[in-house]
Amino acid sequence: MQIPDALSPGKYRRLKRLSDAADRFSMLAVDQRGSLRRMFAREHGTEPTEVAPDRLQQVKRVVTQAVAPLVSGLLTDPLYGYPASIDVLPASTGVLLSGEQTGYVAAGEDERRTRLLEAWSPRRALRSGGDAIKLLVYHHPDASEETHRHEQEIVASMGEACEEAGMPFILEVVTYPMGEAARTPAVQARRKPEVVVDAAKTFSDPAYKVDVLKLEFPANLRFVGAYQDAPFGAGEAVYDRKTVEQACERLDRAAGVPWVILSSGVGIDEFIETLKFANDAGASGFLCGRAAWKDIVRYAPNEREMRHFMAEVGIGRVERLLDANESARAWTDHPKYQSRAAPAGTDPFTTG
Amino acid sequence: MQIPDALSPGKYRRLKRLSDAADRFSMLAVDQRGSLRRMFAREHGTEPTEVAPDRLQQVKRVVTQAVAPLVSGLLTDPLYGYPASIDVLPASTGVLLSGEQTGYVAAGEDERRTRLLEAWSPRRALRSGGDAIKLLVYHHPDASEETHRHEQEIVASMGEACEEAGMPFILEVVTYPMGEAARTPAVQARRKPEVVVDAAKTFSDPAYKVDVLKLEFPANLRFVGAYQDAPFGAGEAVYDRKTVEQACERLDRAAGVPWVILSSGVGIDEFIETLKFANDAGASGFLCGRAAWKDIVRYAPNEREMRHFMAEVGIGRVERLLDANESARAWTDHPKYQSRAAPAGTDPFTTG
Repeated sequence: MQIPDALSPGKYRRLKRLSDAADRFSMLAVDQRGSLRRMFAREHGTEPTEVAPDRLQQVKRVVTQAVAPLVSGLLTDPLYGYPASIDVLPASTGVLLSGEQTGYVAAGEDERRTRLLEAWSPRRALRSGGDAIKLLVYHHPDASEETHRHEQEIVASMGEACEEAGMPFILEVVTYPMGEAARTPAVQARRKPEVVVDAAKTFSDPAYKVDVLKLEFPANLRFVGAYQDAPFGAGEAVYDRKTVEQACERLDRAAGVPWVILSSGVGIDEFIETLKFANDAGASGFLCGRAAWKDIVRYAPNEREMRHFMAEVGIGRVERLLDANESARAWTDHPKYQSRAAPAGTDPFTTG
Repeated sequence: MQIPDALSPGKYRRLKRLSDAADRFSMLAVDQRGSLRRMFAREHGTEPTEVAPDRLQQVKRVVTQAVAPLVSGLLTDPLYGYPASIDVLPASTGVLLSGEQTGYVAAGEDERRTRLLEAWSPRRALRSGGDAIKLLVYHHPDASEETHRHEQEIVASMGEACEEAGMPFILEVVTYPMGEAARTPAVQARRKPEVVVDAAKTFSDPAYKVDVLKLEFPANLRFVGAYQDAPFGAGEAVYDRKTVEQACERLDRAAGVPWVILSSGVGIDEFIETLKFANDAGASGFLCGRAAWKDIVRYAPNEREMRHFMAEVGIGRVERLLDANESARAWTDHPKYQSRAAPAGTDPFTTG
């Protein structure tokens, strides 16, 4: 048997289903709830809470139908996205289901805490046909001891439940600005590498049983000198390309498990640049959300126009992502899995 | 949502993974244990109990590596086959794991009873990365009340456990000769249609929660007049083609769920003929065992020769099966799933 001995058979089979034939992750996210409501509200001049569930479901279904056949995995939510899309999900595309409620609970002055979806668990996700659980937690090194403990407990319990179910555990760590950084984007940009690297280091502890980290880009390209002429340039340079490359290399060393990069709502051009940096440093691909499809909201609920947008624009974006993903590292080549030999003849299936 | 309302999301996703893009089942079985030991013993002049586990594993691995990429599903066993083959199973091929111990417990004069694998369940199979459970039970309408009760209890409990786990339940029903039929093949052949149809009818009761029936061919082609010139002709005709066609049609009417045909150790030419009859009557494909690969045992343990045999002969057989499977009925087109509409907006994921 030549599967990594750090992985159970169930996790191994499912991670293979979430990745492509070269073991790279090319994954798209349509599990947004709160942020999708806000996009609708902005576009259609209404309140986020007034956006009807079937509007969310329509977007998720149209996006899923267009892009799921192109990628190795699709992240959706068990409340709206999955029920609305299950019949348009190709059998060969891995399905990730989110484990957290939308948004966060505010704590202290500017701290954020995740809440888990109720009546939901890795075992139920597995029973429902999912191939992985994605959990989003917030993180900042300067948060209070109590907030740290909260995030650590929630991650540890999900890691344990995923292990028990044979379900891959994809942990998304989203950082946030505290103090002066919350008021001054350039200050936040300068601090970003350290904060994101700390997030990766914290949750790479084997005690959390994370299989893949979904991480922010550890810098803000808008503040890089070389990108000041790009449409997304901030008009102020706080670091250069070399600093960004080094931040990515530090992130790769900090990540004790395969990692992918998330898109944080940036535009597609900026995200593709970050993906190239990340893959060059050792990332195993992407889990891209709004960057691939966000403008579709403009055309809702006209389904013909929504489909037209995906065909004309959305699919092209995904194809660009797939091109940039050629340089991703196979997750099976991550240092965690370098020692691949399992003792011959062991039978992890009917024992343990 | 347009998945059949008789199916849970987990069963639906996994049945899609077990079938091809046209929802036909093209599945191969390498889960043999006792019969594989006996093949080895015959070929190599030894006792079945003396065949080492790594000999079984080698055959299963070489066969799996050669054929799994070609078919929609591969049935293997959790003791030898799956641990020895997990790294050569393509992510896109559905994996069925067997649920019963090899062989049977004899009861009465000539009755047979299945034993379940110990420390094994649909939930564990799911946790290990399997996409379905296959259970083999023996059946004869003339068996004692006690044997009937045994088989019914074992099937009902597996059906319940599969439902709870979101795991498709593939039930294989193997009939056997009793009384004079056990001594006289022509008598057994004449009785076969009635016995196999009774098996299908019995376990189509929704109480058993079977998703796919794996059935014997309801006649013996060796005893059909038109096949007396074929290499497999028995030299004695007990019925004609028309009788065989009618037996297949009766079987299709008796099967309340999608069904596939099994190969019972017959040769490939005979099996392909049975597959055509079955698909014409409404079968959704095949779950073929030894017919596809049995001669490999002759070359064991010379792995180079074993691979050569699969490349030169085994793969060609599978391609012939796939050709004959073009006429299979999509499982989603089975009458059970004709009423496809589920109430919109139901959410079977976080409730129930």
